[in-house]
Amino acid sequence: MTSSFSRILIMGNSLDSAVIESVAAVVEYLSKKDGDQITNIWIDEEISDQLRASKVEVNHTRSKNSEFIKDVDLVIAVGGDGTVLSAARRASNHKVPVLGINRGRLGFLADIRPEDIHSSLDDVLAGNFSSEKRMLLKAEIIQNKQIVSNGIALNDVVIKRRETARTLEYRTFVNDLYVNTHSGDGCIAATPTGSTAYALSVGGPIVQPEMDAIVLAPICPHTLTDRPIVVPGTSETKIELIENHGSPADISADGELIGTLSAGDKLKIFVAEQRIELIHPPGYDYYSVLRSKLYWGRDTRRRLPPQE
Amino acid sequence: MTSSFSRILIMGNSLDSAVIESVAAVVEYLSKKDGDQITNIWIDEEISDQLRASKVEVNHTRSKNSEFIKDVDLVIAVGGDGTVLSAARRASNHKVPVLGINRGRLGFLADIRPEDIHSSLDDVLAGNFSSEKRMLLKAEIIQNKQIVSNGIALNDVVIKRRETARTLEYRTFVNDLYVNTHSGDGCIAATPTGSTAYALSVGGPIVQPEMDAIVLAPICPHTLTDRPIVVPGTSETKIELIENHGSPADISADGELIGTLSAGDKLKIFVAEQRIELIHPPGYDYYSVLRSKLYWGRDTRRRLPPQE
Amino acid sequence: MTSSFSRILIMGNSLDSAVIESVAAVVEYLSKKDGDQITNIWIDEEISDQLRASKVEVNHTRSKNSEFIKDVDLVIAVGGDGTVLSAARRASNHKVPVLGINRGRLGFLADIRPEDIHSSLDDVLAGNFSSEKRMLLKAEIIQNKQIVSNGIALNDVVIKRRETARTLEYRTFVNDLYVNTHSGDGCIAATPTGSTAYALSVGGPIVQPEMDAIVLAPICPHTLTDRPIVVPGTSETKIELIENHGSPADISADGELIGTLSAGDKLKIFVAEQRIELIHPPGYDYYSVLRSKLYWGRDTRRRLPPQE
Amino acid sequence: MTSSFSRILIMGNSLDSAVIESVAAVVEYLSKKDGDQITNIWIDEEISDQLRASKVEVNHTRSKNSEFIKDVDLVIAVGGDGTVLSAARRASNHKVPVLGINRGRLGFLADIRPEDIHSSLDDVLAGNFSSEKRMLLKAEIIQNKQIVSNGIALNDVVIKRRETARTLEYRTFVNDLYVNTHSGDGCIAATPTGSTAYALSVGGPIVQPEMDAIVLAPICPHTLTDRPIVVPGTSETKIELIENHGSPADISADGELIGTLSAGDKLKIFVAEQRIELIHPPGYDYYSVLRSKLYWGRDTRRRLPPQE
Repeated sequence: MTSSFSRILIMGNSLDSAVIESVAAVVEYLSKKDGDQITNIWIDEEISDQLRASKVEVNHTRSKNSEFIKDVDLVIAVGGDGTVLSAARRASNHKVPVLGINRGRLGFLADIRPEDIHSSLDDVLAGNFSSEKRMLLKAEIIQNKQIVSNGIALNDVVIKRRETARTLEYRTFVNDLYVNTHSGDGCIAATPTGSTAYALSVGGPIVQPEMDAIVLAPICPHTLTDRPIVVPGTSETKIELIENHGSPADISADGELIGTLSAGDKLKIFVAEQRIELIHPPGYDYYSVLRSKLYWGRDTRRRLPPQE
Repeated sequence: MTSSFSRILIMGNSLDSAVIESVAAVVEYLSKKDGDQITNIWIDEEISDQLRASKVEVNHTRSKNSEFIKDVDLVIAVGGDGTVLSAARRASNHKVPVLGINRGRLGFLADIRPEDIHSSLDDVLAGNFSSEKRMLLKAEIIQNKQIVSNGIALNDVVIKRRETARTLEYRTFVNDLYVNTHSGDGCIAATPTGSTAYALSVGGPIVQPEMDAIVLAPICPHTLTDRPIVVPGTSETKIELIENHGSPADISADGELIGTLSAGDKLKIFVAEQRIELIHPPGYDYYSVLRSKLYWGRDTRRRLPPQE
Repeated sequence: MTSSFSRILIMGNSLDSAVIESVAAVVEYLSKKDGDQITNIWIDEEISDQLRASKVEVNHTRSKNSEFIKDVDLVIAVGGDGTVLSAARRASNHKVPVLGINRGRLGFLADIRPEDIHSSLDDVLAGNFSSEKRMLLKAEIIQNKQIVSNGIALNDVVIKRRETARTLEYRTFVNDLYVNTHSGDGCIAATPTGSTAYALSVGGPIVQPEMDAIVLAPICPHTLTDRPIVVPGTSETKIELIENHGSPADISADGELIGTLSAGDKLKIFVAEQRIELIHPPGYDYYSVLRSKLYWGRDTRRRLPPQE
Repeated sequence: MTSSFSRILIMGNSLDSAVIESVAAVVEYLSKKDGDQITNIWIDEEISDQLRASKVEVNHTRSKNSEFIKDVDLVIAVGGDGTVLSAARRASNHKVPVLGINRGRLGFLADIRPEDIHSSLDDVLAGNFSSEKRMLLKAEIIQNKQIVSNGIALNDVVIKRRETARTLEYRTFVNDLYVNTHSGDGCIAATPTGSTAYALSVGGPIVQPEMDAIVLAPICPHTLTDRPIVVPGTSETKIELIENHGSPADISADGELIGTLSAGDKLKIFVAEQRIELIHPPGYDYYSVLRSKLYWGRDTRRRLPPQE
């Protein structure tokens, strides 16, 4: 049995030599596979140049056009979670699934270790994989009732004060129902996927990935009772900037700046229509990744009984 | 237009004179209403005795049998949130809705102020109310594969060490998938309703009431990365006690002890089949209650701009 | 008996009409007092202009030179805590005590209410007051072993990433002993006075004001075990920026930008030689202010027994 | 050069076979040392019996009398931090220093690894060690103005509700100044040493060990603004139980129950006169231990730059 993945696009950060190395390994391995299955291997242009510079001789076509992604069956993202985030946002518009190969330590999203590339690719191409859909958030910046900018995020949409010394004052609404007036460094709207990223650092909960839920977490709120709220994925959240004390507020989606908010401007956040499909090799286990990344169960403050 | 509430049961803490006073007010008011609508008013026996002792002359039937609740159309719970919790657990088995009248300050569940009893009752009896269903949790204590005890909770199921100096060691599983090995004071499994109760005190998120979600929040965990997790309402959570250092762990549902766990015993937690219907007078607004109870937007650490 | 406060300088934010109003009240009241005691009343020039514009006829001298502060016996700061912070930093160099008059709600530092101006001034001028010394922090920005900028703070020195999407990586040292490598939004070094300001919003403890201690609190740290540390006031803390991902890190003292850090630069923080003397009217009680500002003891999540 | 440690008492948990093994190693090694220096080796009676049962032939005297500790120059505590806590409380009354040998992973207090026993003992006996004094807390339980019980703690004094479903209501006073009325699971008064133990789990700060400071940290407080407070070591803290809802509150010192509090009873906490002297082998570094135990700098949520 085989999967239907015959046209594959490989993405990664071309400035990272470890990524280049793993891309080469992936390309080399895929090139050797039975041609009946793999019909096309494309690589982002910059990486392609790096590969040639590194004298990696591989049979592949260079990918120039970022819209090119619509003609592939699978995106392989090589790097850290950031690379998978970026690949996923692009792939989601074309319903192309994404497989993440990690360079360095295990990632939340890039969950294949370099040393497992061969066996994992064998499994995935043989149709032996699990697949899950993850929610994406859409953000719209609204000035005078006009959408002036928007963005899409797999992890989170963040509103943040830019200047150290200025506090943001903003109001939140869920489905047009007034929630609260906040004062602090800003606010994070996170998907379940993003609940283990920035939102976790400000005291947000871990949300199981398949949940249809959004976490609204204030960043360093002035009021100590201003706590993270979990709202349904069907909600539309609106954040209205009251006061920015002369300094605009930055809006970012998955860490990329998509615009700024001035007093009176609004930020609308809701679940995007499209979802992203993540491909995992057999044996993927969300909680196992969590345990590994959060050092769970490896308490060194005292002696623990043996664990599983 | 009228509601279909013609047989009403009134509950409350008979030891609280403020409750007795409000029960008298409710009974008196209901007794005066057109007999066509209100056909029966029942009161818990202990309160009934108190009313007579207080020489409140009201036309009502004493409720002796707790199973009596199955024959009523509405339960009015007078007191604090604890009274509503208790009433809701009883009423849920018979699909009877619950209306909460608060004695003292505004409660999360008992949201009618004493001074609004007349107008709120008028509204509710005239069919002018909102109604929402809230999830309940069911807990089963399992020893040697036998269910030895169980309980039901509108707020939370809690496993807690009893002795100050002993730490609980336990493992959690969600749908039989191993999650983590914990060490600390215990664990809270909270409904969205309970997310603003004990779970909030241990760092859990606020969960919007209509969500189908359960918060699993460790109590004073030894490992600082052991954070609250939000899991789908369809999940079955299992907590297995590894080690109790000679002191059993107490299991409570909405604060009432339902049993203890020894090493090797398990606690199973899942959403109960029945839900509870809460009746609110017009204008009920969850976030307004939150703002009031958490002092949101009334920051006194600095001057804030005018709020809505 | 009288105090030795005969030459008084009044400071405040000249753009705030409420401040102007209270300054006028203070000047008027002081002008009427026995001339034997009050020999000089100075006002910051901008406020002075505002007072004239408001046609407040008062007998006072305009203060043009900020160095002027060295010739006064008492600074009266009218406004919020920010005004007292600013006045205190200036006054500390000349060992001049500061009295804070609050416009709006009670402040941590500006603790005289507008309605109490007369009685409080009477008390203070009669020598009926309490006085306490508060620690100040000094910050030095070091590039290539050269101090390129410095600042002084009554509340806190903050290192903060400027760009939303960038994480700061930095190392901390206490007395040249390596403490930790951090990743996150930045770090706060707070005095006990500042422990109830920004540091409280990131999870820092409240530190009793007279303690000789500094709180080092990470801002939204990536690692959940990266917790606030309390070090002795005799410590020299060094923060070394490892990586700023192309965006400099802002350094501020009491919210005022004093410079930026690039990778390799260092920030040195230690207790300043001078302390600031705060004057309080009789009855000042630190914990009473805390209770008021943090809504302590006014729990509305449940009914509480009567309090003192 | 040699140390003045010639009479040595060895303590440990006699039920732990790993401890017995290490005690045997210590005794064997000390017995072989030049008799001029080591004149006496004593062992707690229970361990002594275990050693004989294990047929470890060592030349030592059994220690029957716990008061015996007054005649030794050094206590070697073998086990976890709990063993050192217990040894330290006993040794502190007689000004005998304590050296901790860890069984298992590195402890905060038991900081010599089993594999380093020989080299560390060589160093310590040769006078090549560092020594630090740590503060102890004294707790007094007061009923009707009578001290009915007391205890001493190196880590913390804890007041805790015993029953799961009951909340403690208590008032705190520092030097007879009213601080706050609390509602929750209880309160921890921790030394700097104890700041990394239970107090850390409830959100308390890490306090550098040499500081003269006490952390007062509420346990799962009902009010979210009820935050940990750091007070000077010279303070006397008083906790007055207002309401225990029919269930007494347990008071423990370093995890050992020393009594209970009923409504109206008081708990007084202050720094004990005696301090405990901890002996460390060369190279001891408090922050290195912290880094190891809190997994600092080993962030796996993302790739970090190389660390020292």
